[in-house]
Amino acid sequence: MPQVEEVTETKVHKLETAKEVRVGIVGYGTVGRATAEILAHNTDEIRRRTDGVSIRLTRACRRTLHSSDRLPGSAVLVSDWREVVDAEDVDIVVETIGGTDVAYDVVRASIENGKPVVTANKALVAQYGEELFALADARGVPIGLEATVGGGVPVIRAIAEALAADRIHAVYGIVNGTANFILTRMEHHGVQFEEALRQAQAAGYAEADPSLDIDGLDARDKIAILARLAFNASLAPSQIPVTGIRHIGATDFHYARRLNSTIRLVASAERNPQGISVSVEPWLVEHDSMLAKVDGPNNAIFVAGEKVGTQMLYGHGAGGGATGTAVLSDVVQIARHLARGQRVPNGLPGFHRPEKVALTDRAHPVSWYLRLTVRDHPGILARVAEVIAREGINIDSVIQEPHMQKERLSFVITLEPVGESVVRRAVAAIDQFEFMREKVLLVPIRSC
Amino acid sequence: MPQVEEVTETKVHKLETAKEVRVGIVGYGTVGRATAEILAHNTDEIRRRTDGVSIRLTRACRRTLHSSDRLPGSAVLVSDWREVVDAEDVDIVVETIGGTDVAYDVVRASIENGKPVVTANKALVAQYGEELFALADARGVPIGLEATVGGGVPVIRAIAEALAADRIHAVYGIVNGTANFILTRMEHHGVQFEEALRQAQAAGYAEADPSLDIDGLDARDKIAILARLAFNASLAPSQIPVTGIRHIGATDFHYARRLNSTIRLVASAERNPQGISVSVEPWLVEHDSMLAKVDGPNNAIFVAGEKVGTQMLYGHGAGGGATGTAVLSDVVQIARHLARGQRVPNGLPGFHRPEKVALTDRAHPVSWYLRLTVRDHPGILARVAEVIAREGINIDSVIQEPHMQKERLSFVITLEPVGESVVRRAVAAIDQFEFMREKVLLVPIRSC
Repeated sequence: MPQVEEVTETKVHKLETAKEVRVGIVGYGTVGRATAEILAHNTDEIRRRTDGVSIRLTRACRRTLHSSDRLPGSAVLVSDWREVVDAEDVDIVVETIGGTDVAYDVVRASIENGKPVVTANKALVAQYGEELFALADARGVPIGLEATVGGGVPVIRAIAEALAADRIHAVYGIVNGTANFILTRMEHHGVQFEEALRQAQAAGYAEADPSLDIDGLDARDKIAILARLAFNASLAPSQIPVTGIRHIGATDFHYARRLNSTIRLVASAERNPQGISVSVEPWLVEHDSMLAKVDGPNNAIFVAGEKVGTQMLYGHGAGGGATGTAVLSDVVQIARHLARGQRVPNGLPGFHRPEKVALTDRAHPVSWYLRLTVRDHPGILARVAEVIAREGINIDSVIQEPHMQKERLSFVITLEPVGESVVRRAVAAIDQFEFMREKVLLVPIRSC
Repeated sequence: MPQVEEVTETKVHKLETAKEVRVGIVGYGTVGRATAEILAHNTDEIRRRTDGVSIRLTRACRRTLHSSDRLPGSAVLVSDWREVVDAEDVDIVVETIGGTDVAYDVVRASIENGKPVVTANKALVAQYGEELFALADARGVPIGLEATVGGGVPVIRAIAEALAADRIHAVYGIVNGTANFILTRMEHHGVQFEEALRQAQAAGYAEADPSLDIDGLDARDKIAILARLAFNASLAPSQIPVTGIRHIGATDFHYARRLNSTIRLVASAERNPQGISVSVEPWLVEHDSMLAKVDGPNNAIFVAGEKVGTQMLYGHGAGGGATGTAVLSDVVQIARHLARGQRVPNGLPGFHRPEKVALTDRAHPVSWYLRLTVRDHPGILARVAEVIAREGINIDSVIQEPHMQKERLSFVITLEPVGESVVRRAVAAIDQFEFMREKVLLVPIRSC
């Protein structure tokens, strides 16, 4: 069979030693540091996986050097990322800066230098992945991205490799540990969103600016990556509708419990006859479901294939240990190939020659949870019910907790399955009523 | 760096076409047929994952040909496996015969012919894996084994690749779908073991001779493979203690429910300071645990790593679709390498230069469930309690369902955590009592 494809690169990084692959880390924060520590700590374990090849950290870059910074072994700490990317003694570049500015330059320059890159940067891959992978594939350089989604949970491998022969119907799940920590705090301790957020910050799960997590933007980058892989679909995060968890209240968990359910922030991508539907939004899920069992900062990702059925992958979705392990899984795999003189570009579906795929509303009608917060007076339910009936929607149940303030009373209506555009018309009309104290909280009810 | 190691093989199968990898299947039963069907059905999906390389079935072998047998496309059905393994038009051999007789010859001959092999055969890999991988590594030939454990659940990749940089503490879970189907039938429908087994047979999950599944032997082969991978440990299935589910009765599910628990057959391998402990046995697990949520013929495998935390992989553990998908995931990966002119032997931990590791009892004391079936008369509990006290074990609870026959009365004692050898001494003494109608059922209580 097969010739190795001609690689047109003009500049090829030469590997020098026979039994050692040298790693440089750009971005020495939580993940970068954890990666260095695991590499130093598990040297023997790793050598066993690489067939005797050592993987050694030679350089790390941190923009602002601290006098207390120490690197394992003889590695050198530098403050200019070019001193890593251009270094003769770096064979694989690990990018753990985050963001899409400097990180973009680092990854691009590494590829241009012919050096494999491993990145934990979901924002970069979601937004610039197509361009960067095209460059990398043309140069015959692999990019490792296992750490971008699910922390240590190997969901990228599952979709790109384990299900390579199956036709995937859907990928969905909990991909943001911070949001899940907040929701499960609210569920188990009855606290309001603001208090749960403070607890997440105190526990080190949420940033001072928690917007990426609680507004669903981090989850949106991740589902963009998973949808690309699963459906070979070219799509940008900005195309994906996103609803965060700021508007979920303690009262919603009371009502959810009455419905034998709880609330989870779910990122989802589903194939349908017209294309794919992709979203990030809270779901009401039954207590008995696997999603409801996902507690604290954990992640759980479901992949439904035509032949393989539905799989779930569950584990720590964030933190240095989990993410550093995922980074190193890619480093080890690339090092094994390098040690054989092989560069195996990813050729990943969704990044390598993706297709244009139509983004549509979700195909199947689902049930809905509507929480209304009103200034109570007689006749409210009749007026709301009339709007719902006008759209031809059946009400499944109406629930109201006792002993609420009349000035700010909340109650819940659940609806039988109906398409999203129809329910949104009804909600828009309800939002106009003068007795509404805030907008309707609309949450799909999913059984899975 | 790196030269490609010299390969000493005298006979190297030559690949002929540039953009096609040809597959031969030996063993055309449920899994072999499903593999062929998925390959034919998902041609386009697969080509996308292989960077344009087609994977085509050219030959399949079935010992006894049926006139109704049809293969997809132009593939040829033969009855002698050598006509697959030796064929010029077969680049990768898929072994789906099962057993360790002919299957051994097929895999060995394929490797000797320089052809990559993908196998779904846990018994073969558990028993002869070390020898076969040594041969394969020496010849530079990869062996794919993802389908041996967990059906379509990518647990082999998770341990061998995704956690390559971490130190694994434990691997455990439900790896036999038939046994789990039987146990969950007993749990939800209150039926006895024999009836649940009949239902499993009627549903196509259990063989006419169900011994491999219900006596835990299939699970033992699988945990032997996982323990090798996780701990780089050389071990044979025959070294692993195994307890099946034949002695679990409907009454045990009653008592388990009183303890807010259920029963699952769990295969487990755990690292401890002295070595590793490996076992297959029923566990009493809390209703709230993830293990308890695993229903019907599903599998769920937990992997606990030092840095990555505990992960769970869940999905269909058996059936043609799931297993065929796993087979093809390996075929696709090998084909991608072949298409680049690369042979990447596995170098898998536990198979490639494994270490001798001591097999020990489990390191930590656990709680225990003892179900006694007795001919009732006054003083039984006192005599049993005395034996337990003599071993210095604390009783946690005694439970007896009301309205039982005096001639065959069962009751349950749960014990506070104690080592296995101690509790087994007490049980051996209890089994001697003249009032015992059958041996004590001893089940560890695990929270996980």
